[in-house]
Amino acid sequence: MSRYHDVRKQSEKICEPLQTEDYVVQPVVDVSPPKWHLGHTTWFFETFILMPNQPNYQVFDPQYNFVFNSYYETIGARVIRTDRGNLSRPSVAEIYNYRQYVDEKMSEFLQSDYFKPEHIELLELGLNHEQQHQELLVTDIKYILGHNPLFPVYRDNSLKKTAITSDIKMLKFPEGVYEIGFEGNGFCFDNELGRHKVYLNEFEIADRPVTNGEYLEFMNSGGYDDFKYWHAEGWDWVKNTKAQSPLYWHNIDGNWMIYTLEGLKNIDLDDLLCHINFYEAAAFAAWKGMRLPTEEEWEVAFDQLNWGKRWEWTNSAYLPYPDYKRAAGAVGEYNGKFMINQMVLRGASEATPEGHSRNTYRNFFPTNLQWQFTGIRLAK
Amino acid sequence: MSRYHDVRKQSEKICEPLQTEDYVVQPVVDVSPPKWHLGHTTWFFETFILMPNQPNYQVFDPQYNFVFNSYYETIGARVIRTDRGNLSRPSVAEIYNYRQYVDEKMSEFLQSDYFKPEHIELLELGLNHEQQHQELLVTDIKYILGHNPLFPVYRDNSLKKTAITSDIKMLKFPEGVYEIGFEGNGFCFDNELGRHKVYLNEFEIADRPVTNGEYLEFMNSGGYDDFKYWHAEGWDWVKNTKAQSPLYWHNIDGNWMIYTLEGLKNIDLDDLLCHINFYEAAAFAAWKGMRLPTEEEWEVAFDQLNWGKRWEWTNSAYLPYPDYKRAAGAVGEYNGKFMINQMVLRGASEATPEGHSRNTYRNFFPTNLQWQFTGIRLAK
Amino acid sequence: MSRYHDVRKQSEKICEPLQTEDYVVQPVVDVSPPKWHLGHTTWFFETFILMPNQPNYQVFDPQYNFVFNSYYETIGARVIRTDRGNLSRPSVAEIYNYRQYVDEKMSEFLQSDYFKPEHIELLELGLNHEQQHQELLVTDIKYILGHNPLFPVYRDNSLKKTAITSDIKMLKFPEGVYEIGFEGNGFCFDNELGRHKVYLNEFEIADRPVTNGEYLEFMNSGGYDDFKYWHAEGWDWVKNTKAQSPLYWHNIDGNWMIYTLEGLKNIDLDDLLCHINFYEAAAFAAWKGMRLPTEEEWEVAFDQLNWGKRWEWTNSAYLPYPDYKRAAGAVGEYNGKFMINQMVLRGASEATPEGHSRNTYRNFFPTNLQWQFTGIRLAK
Amino acid sequence: MSRYHDVRKQSEKICEPLQTEDYVVQPVVDVSPPKWHLGHTTWFFETFILMPNQPNYQVFDPQYNFVFNSYYETIGARVIRTDRGNLSRPSVAEIYNYRQYVDEKMSEFLQSDYFKPEHIELLELGLNHEQQHQELLVTDIKYILGHNPLFPVYRDNSLKKTAITSDIKMLKFPEGVYEIGFEGNGFCFDNELGRHKVYLNEFEIADRPVTNGEYLEFMNSGGYDDFKYWHAEGWDWVKNTKAQSPLYWHNIDGNWMIYTLEGLKNIDLDDLLCHINFYEAAAFAAWKGMRLPTEEEWEVAFDQLNWGKRWEWTNSAYLPYPDYKRAAGAVGEYNGKFMINQMVLRGASEATPEGHSRNTYRNFFPTNLQWQFTGIRLAK
Repeated sequence: MSRYHDVRKQSEKICEPLQTEDYVVQPVVDVSPPKWHLGHTTWFFETFILMPNQPNYQVFDPQYNFVFNSYYETIGARVIRTDRGNLSRPSVAEIYNYRQYVDEKMSEFLQSDYFKPEHIELLELGLNHEQQHQELLVTDIKYILGHNPLFPVYRDNSLKKTAITSDIKMLKFPEGVYEIGFEGNGFCFDNELGRHKVYLNEFEIADRPVTNGEYLEFMNSGGYDDFKYWHAEGWDWVKNTKAQSPLYWHNIDGNWMIYTLEGLKNIDLDDLLCHINFYEAAAFAAWKGMRLPTEEEWEVAFDQLNWGKRWEWTNSAYLPYPDYKRAAGAVGEYNGKFMINQMVLRGASEATPEGHSRNTYRNFFPTNLQWQFTGIRLAK
Repeated sequence: MSRYHDVRKQSEKICEPLQTEDYVVQPVVDVSPPKWHLGHTTWFFETFILMPNQPNYQVFDPQYNFVFNSYYETIGARVIRTDRGNLSRPSVAEIYNYRQYVDEKMSEFLQSDYFKPEHIELLELGLNHEQQHQELLVTDIKYILGHNPLFPVYRDNSLKKTAITSDIKMLKFPEGVYEIGFEGNGFCFDNELGRHKVYLNEFEIADRPVTNGEYLEFMNSGGYDDFKYWHAEGWDWVKNTKAQSPLYWHNIDGNWMIYTLEGLKNIDLDDLLCHINFYEAAAFAAWKGMRLPTEEEWEVAFDQLNWGKRWEWTNSAYLPYPDYKRAAGAVGEYNGKFMINQMVLRGASEATPEGHSRNTYRNFFPTNLQWQFTGIRLAK
Repeated sequence: MSRYHDVRKQSEKICEPLQTEDYVVQPVVDVSPPKWHLGHTTWFFETFILMPNQPNYQVFDPQYNFVFNSYYETIGARVIRTDRGNLSRPSVAEIYNYRQYVDEKMSEFLQSDYFKPEHIELLELGLNHEQQHQELLVTDIKYILGHNPLFPVYRDNSLKKTAITSDIKMLKFPEGVYEIGFEGNGFCFDNELGRHKVYLNEFEIADRPVTNGEYLEFMNSGGYDDFKYWHAEGWDWVKNTKAQSPLYWHNIDGNWMIYTLEGLKNIDLDDLLCHINFYEAAAFAAWKGMRLPTEEEWEVAFDQLNWGKRWEWTNSAYLPYPDYKRAAGAVGEYNGKFMINQMVLRGASEATPEGHSRNTYRNFFPTNLQWQFTGIRLAK
Repeated sequence: MSRYHDVRKQSEKICEPLQTEDYVVQPVVDVSPPKWHLGHTTWFFETFILMPNQPNYQVFDPQYNFVFNSYYETIGARVIRTDRGNLSRPSVAEIYNYRQYVDEKMSEFLQSDYFKPEHIELLELGLNHEQQHQELLVTDIKYILGHNPLFPVYRDNSLKKTAITSDIKMLKFPEGVYEIGFEGNGFCFDNELGRHKVYLNEFEIADRPVTNGEYLEFMNSGGYDDFKYWHAEGWDWVKNTKAQSPLYWHNIDGNWMIYTLEGLKNIDLDDLLCHINFYEAAAFAAWKGMRLPTEEEWEVAFDQLNWGKRWEWTNSAYLPYPDYKRAAGAVGEYNGKFMINQMVLRGASEATPEGHSRNTYRNFFPTNLQWQFTGIRLAK
């Protein structure tokens, strides 16, 4: 119960520095308006827990199902084709009312006899779902403010500074059979199961991710202008977008500045690189004469690694583990249907909510996206 | 002076019923966020009147030039590619502060010796420009609310009802030489000049625009399914958009309802048809065995017509009059550069600000747009 | 009869220099493969003359209706979505067989009693239709060969050289009522009717079109880099296509070369400018401080003009004349449905078949196309 | 030497039934014109073997490098942006001359002292490269003819019929460490190396691929209308393309017909299913309550499988093997740069040239393409 309220409050705390207008916009399709995140996570508890299990539950507003459902497979008749960023209503105030209403009903439910042990798993899924959206809230708020020509500050002291001062050390692991995947009794997503054996060749993996300064060497040596470091798809991306740097980097009068949640700042060469896509990560590794680790290598090595500040691109495609079973019902749509043409990210980032990171966690994104707090770890 | 303040206040009055969120969104590229209209019209006075003519004028915020300039030809170096609807900042409150600041400075200027007779024309242009944006504010607010699945009400009693009860009468005009174009001493846009002679064949023109009921007959007789009434381009538009009705019409359980500024309403068959594009207007006329009038015919006939509730599509392309002269400088970009591939609308609509309509007024829009308060007048 | 065969042979004569492969390709949607032109013009006679009027006529191949019909409004069930340039079959040889078959049947028909006076008009339309496609054959063949990196020669001595040596003279015409439109008994398209009076202000019009050398001055003075000469739409076209010259101009090692039907040649400064679109024509005129003529001015002045080498962009939109009547049936689709968002070209070009040009001829094209043999005549 | 000529002749034999026009067209971007395949494979031997190794070699035509280079990274100055299917020149006859010229020069070279043992590997790569294009020639010819509304026959008796009469049997394999990848002295592509150990869980794999009849059950049970069988991306593909069947299936008057290289035929329920993309393969497997095999499972099981008629979609992403090394130079671009966002196909098809299939062969395609001779093998 207190965990329910702690997690729910955290979403609202993330939004505290926002002005009403910031809640509304959607600059690109991958970004959702903050008010949508606040409504959608609430809709999850209302739809999957209260409606089926709380007798006589009154939905807050029957039309919200259309507005906050993220799966568009079963839509009704009076639909107007629109995007999330075009919806000025429900207003931010109405959505906070919605949150308060559902939180009160959830409090009653969790203290009632209707709350049964078999609901715990779904409750836990709802809370982890909300934590995932907390991370998206941070990435999306950064995108919204960072693409405004006024470069507004989100929150002073919002960054945990990391000054890297030592060179990368390559850690060596022997070939052999290892075990991978979640084990234990706590919560995990279905994509972390089942735990299974893999055979790995001998490999080396870097003790820490790459810094801005190390990446700048790649840029200065012409990395974005030489096709031989890039996947064919990546090179197309470079040419089509005219990319010359990670996201949020601005070359102003010859100096590199980076938009951060504290506003536009001079580049910090010793800070960890952030906001690169898979193509950039792979090209940097190729330029170094190395490669990205597989997710299995990462998981085998994790407790000797400095990790948790950046989501790290692996060279593993997001595919089911050998004994993967899709859950039944709508919840079964959660992960499995996305298992194609995306790459696995391992680790966690400074935007990940506390208590939401795990060494078996399998995050995943399309190869062209930069807006996550992503970084690079080398392997060979 | 009092005219300046009256016009400026009117823009804010139009926005009174809005919630903050409604000021921000831009559902399609042709629609601008209401807060942008409020800022852009203010920027016009600041840039074209105060900055060149008021000594020591302090601009409110130097970055606003980028945000509120609608002509993107001369942009600076630190530009981020974005759309108006992606900008959460400046906030609505900041824009109202901007308006207040500029209005105060304008008050001082208009009462000072710096205000010279030669500025009157530009001042008048700025006020007419603001009135044009008042009309766009209404069309854009309607689009924003009308494309929200919750169909919010803008303002009760916002509509002037028109119940048409008599059949269309065709008024006949003899062939001959007529004069067209603005004359007199009042304000007009450069595109209404110069006044010139035209030779017209004998023609007939309807005394009033078409009603919803008359258009519904066209729809019920399969008008949207028979290519022979349509221009080739119009038929492509029908097929690509799957259009089956004017904008804001919704067929709900077999009944036609129309979104209005008072919310979703049952269709009123005797009200004037609204929100059709040029293709629909021309197809309806072809189905009737008639045609749309030219702008010259309309202007010759205007004082015998029931007009002013709908912008009426003509079959005249938006092109310069024989003695058209483009004004010098940035103001010269106002009209001339749009004189291609648009059609002329004549009349005015219920969204047109009082005092802003004129029998020589030449409005113009692309042929595919429906979001204006447009209607159909028949001719033959 | 001999006129029928003369016109028909001319189409094949145009194709004589082609290799089989040249008949097949369609580099852009506006260009059709030469073999399609040969088939489509044949299909016209088969469908509109032989099938309805020749008893027991056997169609050459029932599937050709689908392949060679240019109006896709009434297509059957077994359709495969494809473009003309994707069709390798029917082969070139089969299409020549088709032509021969229809020509023989037409010979029989024209000598038979089934051929009635009321068919003459349709026959004449078919021949004029074939002549229009002869002109398109030349423009499309030029596009196909001129967009091949090997720059193949179409035919030596295929160009009628024009060396302009004198300056442009402006001819002056007084204001007044003039008459416009086709009169007489010969053939004309429906869009040239009805003849009607227009009132024109006093105007001046150039005695000849613009040369390459005159246009090169515009280019060298930065014409493609200064938005103030361009329509807003035209400026978008410049930026999107990165246009810096007319079509077929290549700057090779600092020298301008032009692809012609005789291959790649050094620019001839005294030759008439060719292959510019409406935006370029209007921008050039604005740079000169002048304008393009209207089609009415052109027609009033035509017999004092040097014309016939280039289709000349006018500043008149392609719209119906006052007494325009659409023909009944499929033939009525010929012109009227295209009367929107295109501009009128007057004159004729070196690609126009002999006997196909007329002072009242109204050609028309979208404003962005350059592949016609278009030029510029100034007015003021 | 005789192997060189045997392989080279085979490409021309595949093209024998074509008419000249069939060599030219490119109906979609994934398909290349047959004449391009004939030129490109020739260019490979000229560029990588003759030019660097045969003293005084005269290139056939210096401009062919631009036309037949499939990697556009290093293009010269006089380039015209065009697509392969827009190039009517060089003609088919010229390309056959090019082949003959290069084949003669290769004969001389292979019998000369300039031909050294270290060239054998590159020669072998060139021949395998030509064989890959032979397979593409068949798939592309089928696409070109099969998308023509006349449904031309390629060659009678071009199909090897396979009548499947027995039910699928699932073969069981125990968990454990297996070895994967090419070993031995013959030719293989770099992507089949290095041979390495994998740990597999216990699995079952079907003894044969799926038939038309089995797939038709999926279709008839509404497989294309129920999102729950599909990846999210696959479901988008279904909705965007309105797909309701494999490629080349036509429902004509209620009966399923299939376009084959012998023309349009009634469906053969006992023949192996062909021309489905990854999304369809995965959806079918999900509908069956099974899954697709991984490429490792396939390779472990291969000698107990009925294979070689269809390329079989696996659920393995196309990624490098543990010890994969990219070759140096241009040849190193051959495989590695495509190792992202594609899925592995195992086996071979009836379009695969004899001697070109291997149990370790890793074919790969994007998930949305259907034009390969692809099939489905079930696993669980």
